[in-house]
Amino acid sequence: MNIAVLLFEDFETLDVYGPVEVFGRLVDLYSISFYSLSGGLIKNKHGVSVETKSLEEIKQSLDIFLIPGGFGTRKEVDNKMLIAKIKEIATLSTFVLTVCTGSALLAKTGLLDYKKATSNKRAFAWVITNGVNVQWDKKARWTVDDKFYTSSGVSAGIDMSLAFLADQHGIAFARRVAFEIEYNWSEDRDCDRFVVE
Amino acid sequence: MNIAVLLFEDFETLDVYGPVEVFGRLVDLYSISFYSLSGGLIKNKHGVSVETKSLEEIKQSLDIFLIPGGFGTRKEVDNKMLIAKIKEIATLSTFVLTVCTGSALLAKTGLLDYKKATSNKRAFAWVITNGVNVQWDKKARWTVDDKFYTSSGVSAGIDMSLAFLADQHGIAFARRVAFEIEYNWSEDRDCDRFVVE
Repeated sequence: MNIAVLLFEDFETLDVYGPVEVFGRLVDLYSISFYSLSGGLIKNKHGVSVETKSLEEIKQSLDIFLIPGGFGTRKEVDNKMLIAKIKEIATLSTFVLTVCTGSALLAKTGLLDYKKATSNKRAFAWVITNGVNVQWDKKARWTVDDKFYTSSGVSAGIDMSLAFLADQHGIAFARRVAFEIEYNWSEDRDCDRFVVE
Repeated sequence: MNIAVLLFEDFETLDVYGPVEVFGRLVDLYSISFYSLSGGLIKNKHGVSVETKSLEEIKQSLDIFLIPGGFGTRKEVDNKMLIAKIKEIATLSTFVLTVCTGSALLAKTGLLDYKKATSNKRAFAWVITNGVNVQWDKKARWTVDDKFYTSSGVSAGIDMSLAFLADQHGIAFARRVAFEIEYNWSEDRDCDRFVVE
């Protein structure tokens, strides 16, 4: 499966590289590329820089479109060109995965309307304003609805990616990957101990 | 504190970006840069590419020298120039942190001799051959001895980084960071549930 990871200024580091670790190590099954709206070097405040291709270069339908979160989403939800492009690519993708506040960007396209979704629990009040028709689930570690996987904050992207592996290749396969990366996988998607009341 | 992250071909993604997430988000306290032996673009099999500076450019003593693991370490333990440079920089650094099989590279310098250290549990038999005088601890999630922090595999680098924060800024501070990144921190360094007998 080919995976396109969307980057933008001030993406959250682990939102990206947690899933990249999970899928990237399965070199015979998944292939990862990094994109941004206009291509070029994308940076965040953690000191991370990534050379990206332009989203325009995506000419064929994707197997997986991965949208991370981070403070950059606060600005990007108002980037009409980016949201339009996300909508176009997400529509053509077999699966769309969001981590943290990445679900705010996807919600803004309208594609999550009347579907279950979650997000970072400390940004929840803001995130839900970007999709008033979304069935936001505040208790979930991650959600799956139709082709859309959405996860809670940062590390939860790893849990969600492992859940995606479980759906595709079985629970034993996913558990083996969790074991190999020595990750304490929260297998229960409905229970997020980081919920803020 | 300034943090220099060592990269080499086929480093493990999360070994690097787990700690980068933990330290990088504390922008007022930590500053991260990426280095490799000769500088330039360093890649791994997960599809990740990073532009690095040359280790030669490190002219002042570092606060933290971070050495990740990954399959690349199997080759790099025999890279005499790299090992010599790691020894030089680690000697001048206030703290040295290794993740996963990164401890094999550090052990090879001799600096871990007669000190406690750990590593990835599935690579343990190989790792210990690189430092026969090291007090290898097979049960630890991470170890601290003098200025050396070593962690078990991949995700354990996050646990170790949080432990470093606890040592520097207190347990409440570290727990808050773990909460913010929604990470189930294994606070007990002596208990690694991923031990392979």
